[in-house]
Amino acid sequence: MSVILKGADVVKEMNEAMMAELALRTADGLAVPKLAIVRVGERPDDLAYERGAVKRFANIGLRTELYAFAAEISQEDFLAAFRQINADPDVHGILVFRPLAPQIDDRLVIEAIDPAKDVDGISPVNMAKIFAGDDSGFAPCTAAAVVAILDHAGISLKGKRVAVVGRSLVVGKPLSMLLLARDATVTLCHSKTLDLPAVCREADILVACVGKAKMLGVEYVRPGAVVIDVGINVDEEGNLWGDVDFTAVEGIAGAVTPVPGGVGTVTTSILARQLMKAAAKGR
Amino acid sequence: MSVILKGADVVKEMNEAMMAELALRTADGLAVPKLAIVRVGERPDDLAYERGAVKRFANIGLRTELYAFAAEISQEDFLAAFRQINADPDVHGILVFRPLAPQIDDRLVIEAIDPAKDVDGISPVNMAKIFAGDDSGFAPCTAAAVVAILDHAGISLKGKRVAVVGRSLVVGKPLSMLLLARDATVTLCHSKTLDLPAVCREADILVACVGKAKMLGVEYVRPGAVVIDVGINVDEEGNLWGDVDFTAVEGIAGAVTPVPGGVGTVTTSILARQLMKAAAKGR
Repeated sequence: MSVILKGADVVKEMNEAMMAELALRTADGLAVPKLAIVRVGERPDDLAYERGAVKRFANIGLRTELYAFAAEISQEDFLAAFRQINADPDVHGILVFRPLAPQIDDRLVIEAIDPAKDVDGISPVNMAKIFAGDDSGFAPCTAAAVVAILDHAGISLKGKRVAVVGRSLVVGKPLSMLLLARDATVTLCHSKTLDLPAVCREADILVACVGKAKMLGVEYVRPGAVVIDVGINVDEEGNLWGDVDFTAVEGIAGAVTPVPGGVGTVTTSILARQLMKAAAKGR
Repeated sequence: MSVILKGADVVKEMNEAMMAELALRTADGLAVPKLAIVRVGERPDDLAYERGAVKRFANIGLRTELYAFAAEISQEDFLAAFRQINADPDVHGILVFRPLAPQIDDRLVIEAIDPAKDVDGISPVNMAKIFAGDDSGFAPCTAAAVVAILDHAGISLKGKRVAVVGRSLVVGKPLSMLLLARDATVTLCHSKTLDLPAVCREADILVACVGKAKMLGVEYVRPGAVVIDVGINVDEEGNLWGDVDFTAVEGIAGAVTPVPGGVGTVTTSILARQLMKAAAKGR
């Protein structure tokens, strides 16, 4: 049987470390780090993620403040409000739910956000740092969550063959750079890759971030390989499925993350850790 | 025998296209694009590249202006001068020889350069665009030269396995992103890659950018593969060698670039093309 890499175990370790750090910080008389959550309208997905983040941040002892705007707010009004949040010295990090709204150009916000508060890693400055292998910035949380799970499981990346399936700017590309910085040999695969199963079978570690339910079955997995499933796909009945056919792969893989309960579970802890890092830099 | 992919053929085609475009531009009464070449001190390598660029730009009909500073100029004085060049509306693009000098922090210049004039692709904004697959910015010239050679030879990248050996921020990483944007399946290899010859033999196209003379021999090349050699290594006698053992690989590879006369020959034409693009954007 495969080892099941549960997100909860990673979260527990990360959160304990953050609570200890937070205690030291408050003992020094420093402010409790605050995350500004910026939302336009009321998309159910955003609300669900928000509820989770607010609760988990409270459990750690971190502050969140919600800035919710009406779905029909003008771009001008939104940007003016955003600049105030951005400049507020009591805000240490900012999470923006995107896409914002049809009338608002997301790029203006991506370019406006203070890179030092951009704990979700959306600004070009943080992108460029991830690309450069400079760890002074902030990575997109899901990409960093994958690395945290591998680290927690004690899986070394140095010299390993890793196949990353999916080349999005939110997961596949930044994750490839984080893995490369750990000396993995990374192959970036995508919808145009020929004989994808064979390419994936070359990998010691296979990461699926394509967004297609149960797409990767046994033929993609070298026996004993580590399989990390970033996919969160919802079917008509509201069930969650990963990009990996978990039932088929379990028993073949050396280790595999479940969905739900795997990578997705860890992302808010990464967000919290990046907020702590932003606050520690004196903001 | 392998097809020899000569840089001169690519340069000829690119330069003819640029001369035609330049004729249209001047007929419209627009200024001839000007490149500012910024140099501190007199390193022989910089001087050699500068002489080549000045001559080739003149042949195309483009302007260059040299801004040479004494090796011992203070950081403050240099930055003040640089800001003037950066703001000059008659300067359409800027090439900065780096490292500048021990007393000058290169990062300050990288951050100061106007991304719209950064025709050598050093600013974080242009990095982030390359990473994002957004072609509105400027790529590092050597990385773009590799793609230009493949394009000129009519070698399609879609679905091809490409191994890039070397992960520098100047060549390996941006090149991987340019190839990925063309739908290649890219494996980024480096000094920590295990069994590098076997990984390279998986590739339809092998790109060497490691900086070690004749490191890649026949055991790295699948018969018929395309081999692009970015290396320029100088031995004690002043001879130039690529990263590829050309003599050994010629006859095994389907096509191969020579050194000298391959990728390096194309970089100044890329610089010129990026200057034309910067000028066309109305600067």
